[in-house]
Amino acid sequence: MTADVQAADPFGWLERAAAERARAGLTRRLRPRGRHEDVLDLAGNDYLGLTRHPVVTRAAADAAVRWGAGATGSRLVTGSTALHGELEAELTDFHGAEAALVFSSGFAANLGMVTALSGAGTHLVCDRYNHASLIDATRLAKASGARVSLFGHADAAAARAALAAAAEPRRLVVSDTVFSVDGDLADVAGLARACREHGAALVLDDAHGLGVLGDSGAGALSAAGLSGAGDVVVSVTLSKSLGAQGGAVLGPRGVIRHLAETARTFVFDTGLAPASAGGALAALRLLRAEPERAARVRSTARRLAAGLTAAGLRTGAPGAAVVSVRAPSPDAAVQWARRCLDAGVRVGCFRPPSVPDGHSRLRLTARADLTEDEIGRALEVVTATRPEGLRRS
Amino acid sequence: MTADVQAADPFGWLERAAAERARAGLTRRLRPRGRHEDVLDLAGNDYLGLTRHPVVTRAAADAAVRWGAGATGSRLVTGSTALHGELEAELTDFHGAEAALVFSSGFAANLGMVTALSGAGTHLVCDRYNHASLIDATRLAKASGARVSLFGHADAAAARAALAAAAEPRRLVVSDTVFSVDGDLADVAGLARACREHGAALVLDDAHGLGVLGDSGAGALSAAGLSGAGDVVVSVTLSKSLGAQGGAVLGPRGVIRHLAETARTFVFDTGLAPASAGGALAALRLLRAEPERAARVRSTARRLAAGLTAAGLRTGAPGAAVVSVRAPSPDAAVQWARRCLDAGVRVGCFRPPSVPDGHSRLRLTARADLTEDEIGRALEVVTATRPEGLRRS
Ligand SMILES: Cc1ncc(COP(=O)(O)O)c(C=O)c1O
Ligand SMILES: Cc1ncc(COP(=O)(O)O)c(C=O)c1O
Repeated sequence: MTADVQAADPFGWLERAAAERARAGLTRRLRPRGRHEDVLDLAGNDYLGLTRHPVVTRAAADAAVRWGAGATGSRLVTGSTALHGELEAELTDFHGAEAALVFSSGFAANLGMVTALSGAGTHLVCDRYNHASLIDATRLAKASGARVSLFGHADAAAARAALAAAAEPRRLVVSDTVFSVDGDLADVAGLARACREHGAALVLDDAHGLGVLGDSGAGALSAAGLSGAGDVVVSVTLSKSLGAQGGAVLGPRGVIRHLAETARTFVFDTGLAPASAGGALAALRLLRAEPERAARVRSTARRLAAGLTAAGLRTGAPGAAVVSVRAPSPDAAVQWARRCLDAGVRVGCFRPPSVPDGHSRLRLTARADLTEDEIGRALEVVTATRPEGLRRS
Repeated sequence: MTADVQAADPFGWLERAAAERARAGLTRRLRPRGRHEDVLDLAGNDYLGLTRHPVVTRAAADAAVRWGAGATGSRLVTGSTALHGELEAELTDFHGAEAALVFSSGFAANLGMVTALSGAGTHLVCDRYNHASLIDATRLAKASGARVSLFGHADAAAARAALAAAAEPRRLVVSDTVFSVDGDLADVAGLARACREHGAALVLDDAHGLGVLGDSGAGALSAAGLSGAGDVVVSVTLSKSLGAQGGAVLGPRGVIRHLAETARTFVFDTGLAPASAGGALAALRLLRAEPERAARVRSTARRLAAGLTAAGLRTGAPGAAVVSVRAPSPDAAVQWARRCLDAGVRVGCFRPPSVPDGHSRLRLTARADLTEDEIGRALEVVTATRPEGLRRS
């Protein structure tokens, strides 16, 4: 610190902001996990149980050794390796799309996909509960001249009405397929019909659908019979079912080419690290070899939800791998999750502003590799540790 | 494609956009590189030559095997491992900062850093040539109520004047330290003085400074005598000098805690893949053990620039590792870069909109591990392949 620092602290306001979060029960803490914790994980998004699969970790390790620890530049300069091309080809084939483009994260894929397809003369019609990355993408699109309307959550009729009211020459309906906190589904087929009636494009985030939805885990488009549709673009992430890091956009060839040439989070970002590309590729090949993993996640999620409901807790019917359980308050949610962890079960705890409707809850994720015993233990612990207000009378 | 696809193609406009890019000489193509190309790379950002260093690739591989191919969730849920904590501690120590926070990319770090520190009542005073990620961050900040002013490139006096004119209670000066295309430097000390006169915070992107600037490569803050300053926040990337993927923000403890709790690209993004964290950590430790790598990059960049200038080409004086050479047109730049590649030297080619001033150029990057021979060959090839308009008479 040099001598001429002024008394005025330009970051003084952050203390007040922290105090306000504390008062509202919204403090968050980073708690690094160790390597050998004796904890049953129902908080991560490793839906297929592949992130620590030896074939996947070996492929990630090999990619680092063969290609280097980093991509060394933008995909348009030095950051595209043959491995990235291989991953894009495999994703394209699995998804039944014309083409794919790999980004450094799912977040970056969403930002790039939405902004590169919008701008002046565009109207974005968005589900009210879209993921933060789609919301930020929409904000950026608006800053570059797009109009934005929100429609009622998961309500395809409302999306259709918003489309009908939009006069712009280019219209896009933008939605998650699986909503990440509650685990409920968009009406993808209904949204697609509404788009086609109005000559609009459908833009979907299938982050929690890939590997989980559709008979072989090919995702929400496949489940809705829309694979390869020329008017649909979809993003996926490599960080959940595929156990690695990164994101991709899949769609018509012309769209993918446009993104590669203009999406700012593609052009101005370093390419995905080879280890992540290699890990995701191996996970994808494992999923294709063992497609039953997808159905197993879904049935496990339904069993978790049924068990919690039977115990008198408020859960939704899970459409994919995510099971959400209402808590009476942010503080109660934090304490509930902590009691679960003390009892050896890690669950997610979602509080404002991470919950779209302002209601705090636990978030449990099913995994294809959960055993009967583990499912039973999870149900026992979550039920036994519930807050007073949720006790059965 | 299902039967009810309408004739109207919602992506029809993309063909016209592609045709326009082609007419302007602005088509971009992905060209995946192979594993064993006999090419001298002066296009990547692997400044210290560490991305393929066996210690670094081994560390990346080990991390994948030990921790898994992915982080499995947000850093606030399951995505923080002890390895992430170790990397943050090492970055903090090296940088002389109070604390550090690792993001999934440098792009994400910039988005998170700027947006979490702004909002209503904030005024962002930004260098006109800031990187795309800072520009997008600024657009998001504006969407949430911040005011934004641009100041003349690298002009601290202009930044001071903009600060003086800003009435908002919270003011931030936002700048790259090394401008990524031209390789020139911000006047960091001058910006810091201007900020202190006005009680403003200084927010810097040191993506191209870490590992290159300062005697030991600790970056632009260290070079300006500002390490550990309480009114400065800086982002770095793990994808350039540290040869991996990811980004980090360094600064006062209160700022870092605020980002961990509120930055949307941190809270709503999957944590950095263990392999990337492990690779970056090993690269950082190598740099600390061999700090002369930093000085070597800078002297190599100066030699490249001197050689090109002596041959009559227009280059700036490189402040860090990047050497930029003016081309007469976008098409000429593309052809020049292609002739270099045909002659075995890969250089970057930057055209609108990737160049802030609209002038296309080649971008050459120095590396700490370039040999005398390689420097000579690079100079020979770039000079011999120059466009007709740039021939010496
Ligand atoms: C619905 C949704 N979309 C996108 C993302 C971002 O993907 P990634 O974490 O791979 O960047 C996430 C979660 O992180 C998500 O839940
Ligand atoms: C100045 C600058 N800031 C930020 C970034 C983004 O970092 P990353 O590629 O690691 O996401 C880059 C380049 O990619 C850059 O050049």
